[in-house]
Amino acid sequence: MLEQMGKAARQASYQLSTLSTAQKNAALMLIADMLEANSQSIIQANELDMAAARESGMKESLLDRLLLTPARLTAIANDVRDVCRLSDPVGQVIDGAQMDSGLKLQRRRVPLGVVGVIYEARPNVTIDVASLCLKTGNAVILRGGKETHHTNLATVNVIQKALEECGLPAASVQAIQSPDRALVAEMLRLDKYIDMLIPRGGAALHKLCREQSTIPVITGGIGVCHTFVDESVDFEKALTVIESAKVQRPSACNSLETLLVHEAIASRFLPALSEKMHFAGVTLHASSSALPHLKDGPARVVDVKEEDYQDEWLSLDLNVTVVASLDAAVAHIRQYGTEHSDAILTRSISSAERFVNEVDSSAVYVNASTRFTDGGQFGLGAEVAVSTQKLHARGPMGLEALTTYKWIGYGDDLVRP
Amino acid sequence: MLEQMGKAARQASYQLSTLSTAQKNAALMLIADMLEANSQSIIQANELDMAAARESGMKESLLDRLLLTPARLTAIANDVRDVCRLSDPVGQVIDGAQMDSGLKLQRRRVPLGVVGVIYEARPNVTIDVASLCLKTGNAVILRGGKETHHTNLATVNVIQKALEECGLPAASVQAIQSPDRALVAEMLRLDKYIDMLIPRGGAALHKLCREQSTIPVITGGIGVCHTFVDESVDFEKALTVIESAKVQRPSACNSLETLLVHEAIASRFLPALSEKMHFAGVTLHASSSALPHLKDGPARVVDVKEEDYQDEWLSLDLNVTVVASLDAAVAHIRQYGTEHSDAILTRSISSAERFVNEVDSSAVYVNASTRFTDGGQFGLGAEVAVSTQKLHARGPMGLEALTTYKWIGYGDDLVRP
Repeated sequence: MLEQMGKAARQASYQLSTLSTAQKNAALMLIADMLEANSQSIIQANELDMAAARESGMKESLLDRLLLTPARLTAIANDVRDVCRLSDPVGQVIDGAQMDSGLKLQRRRVPLGVVGVIYEARPNVTIDVASLCLKTGNAVILRGGKETHHTNLATVNVIQKALEECGLPAASVQAIQSPDRALVAEMLRLDKYIDMLIPRGGAALHKLCREQSTIPVITGGIGVCHTFVDESVDFEKALTVIESAKVQRPSACNSLETLLVHEAIASRFLPALSEKMHFAGVTLHASSSALPHLKDGPARVVDVKEEDYQDEWLSLDLNVTVVASLDAAVAHIRQYGTEHSDAILTRSISSAERFVNEVDSSAVYVNASTRFTDGGQFGLGAEVAVSTQKLHARGPMGLEALTTYKWIGYGDDLVRP
Repeated sequence: MLEQMGKAARQASYQLSTLSTAQKNAALMLIADMLEANSQSIIQANELDMAAARESGMKESLLDRLLLTPARLTAIANDVRDVCRLSDPVGQVIDGAQMDSGLKLQRRRVPLGVVGVIYEARPNVTIDVASLCLKTGNAVILRGGKETHHTNLATVNVIQKALEECGLPAASVQAIQSPDRALVAEMLRLDKYIDMLIPRGGAALHKLCREQSTIPVITGGIGVCHTFVDESVDFEKALTVIESAKVQRPSACNSLETLLVHEAIASRFLPALSEKMHFAGVTLHASSSALPHLKDGPARVVDVKEEDYQDEWLSLDLNVTVVASLDAAVAHIRQYGTEHSDAILTRSISSAERFVNEVDSSAVYVNASTRFTDGGQFGLGAEVAVSTQKLHARGPMGLEALTTYKWIGYGDDLVRP
């Protein structure tokens, strides 16, 4: 069955790749309109998923992520309309030259072809990913979580109807219909038909994809983010950045998980940190070097465990340790970081530059919160995923990350010298 | 053992990533000098490989590729000096902006980290790859073919001595010492230490890497290249391009393997092709549609087999078939091509544009030989490999393909709004 879907997606991708921006935008506008016009059928499907989720005992916070309302559907439709306003990278000429051989060479941006996305229970991702892929002339095969099964099918059904009304192949956007997990393994080997695979989920999904996929995979979205407090900081300003990085949205991958404090200021800074974190409701996980300076403070403090350094908290918890130097801070980040986002707070230009050069992460900050790692904050207009690997795209991935390029050489019956 | 090598390479990569271009060039110049100064030890090692290869009955053409002479070593050393003259992509700021939030954002090119290369029996590849990796601040782990075992070890030994003399870690360039094949499988799973894997070899090696590697792989170098002869061509000029594409260097991956001829001209063009190919010593593998027009010509002609369309000849053999239209030509290329290099010969602007848009290959040519797909011909200065995949780099890979980028955000104790 997946073989058939793959073939159909590949075929659709040929047609999508030659569309003009205006044609793609027209399809997106119709999709937005039809999502609103068919909100009733989508919301009915969503009610089935909600009922099943409640029965399975899903947490309130997850239930809320799953829920669709007419207002939410309108917001999602408006997101699709926003994608129309983004500039289309396809067709851009990146560079080119008239070579000495006589060859007129240019490098032109083209769609990837077929994108595969595996994601967890959030119904908006379906529409989000589909619209970004369409905008860049890619076909997409979606594999959502079983919790959003009915919602996804109803949504894709509406998208396909809109595509057909525009004379575009329905197979431009396909969802895998069955929640059978064996299909994921099958999908990972469809390298003949899928050009890029984006897993949006936890570490286990990424590991599965890295190990079993024969399709190039973009992994990311897992952020054990650090902030190093150098000896020269302004305490109050530093605490404001730290608080925001931790509490603004703890469940986000760019939130702060581990604070590294220079030993020269630890005895003064850590008690102030305890005050600030107490008011923010943050539990501190302190190393043996940090604990003496935290144990008398108002914030809740427990011993940090080795594995705490390796995983995201995604909650109001913060690891705190004391380091002897910038070198020790960099070494800690190299050992435990996930190359997502790391920051230094310092007044020293030389410390800042060394940190920027030596910490090998997708995003490195000087005197700023790690929370900035985001397609919107980076001016990309949209975000397909946040890559923490080094090939193709690194950090927030915008529309450009859904394209590749083609070398085009023009001659006049030219042979290589 | 590989774990140790990986750790050492990662550690070395930290130091390499912060070197200035001048420091890297100084190391490269010393490597070039020491390769010449130590030519005796390298050539002695090469003699061991040559003796073993002769004993195993290696073909003359392969023996010649394996052989090192003082003149060849000097040429290789001069190639290293040429790499010094290439501009260093590391440190380039790709783009940047002052965001409304106050964040000063820039995207800076940085080394990948550690590159793994698996390659077959050509001793020059060792030095070539090592110098390109060093120029871009990457550490490299090399796994050469067993046929060049002694030569590679002697070469890497000299490179490491030169590195140490410059105060750089010897582990910047390492070769896997044992020819044990199990080590390849182990290497493919060193994702903790290797950031990118480049297999330079045949289809079986690429398949192995795609299926078993947990490290992102760049596949390529396999070219089933097509040329479509449209109905509007100048016969003589077209035949000149075809001849050059086929015979200039048949063993190269960018050489022509299959000729698609528009049916409107087949009865006149194919007899002329037979004349030309006869003089060039090319055997034609004709489809049933092409055969009637070739069987009375002077060139040797046999029936083409289905599998001939799928594999590279890499020899003076050429598949020939007749197609009813541009659409049919595109369909053939989509079915059998390897997305390497494909060309159209035509006088029609609209056919040219359709071919360029619809053929999804790394390099697409209009009225030019497929042989142009080459780092040197594309002005890249050097070529690490030719990628036929779509992520990261496509087509000839120059120094830039050995880098990634890092987002750097500067604030003044800035929090996300």
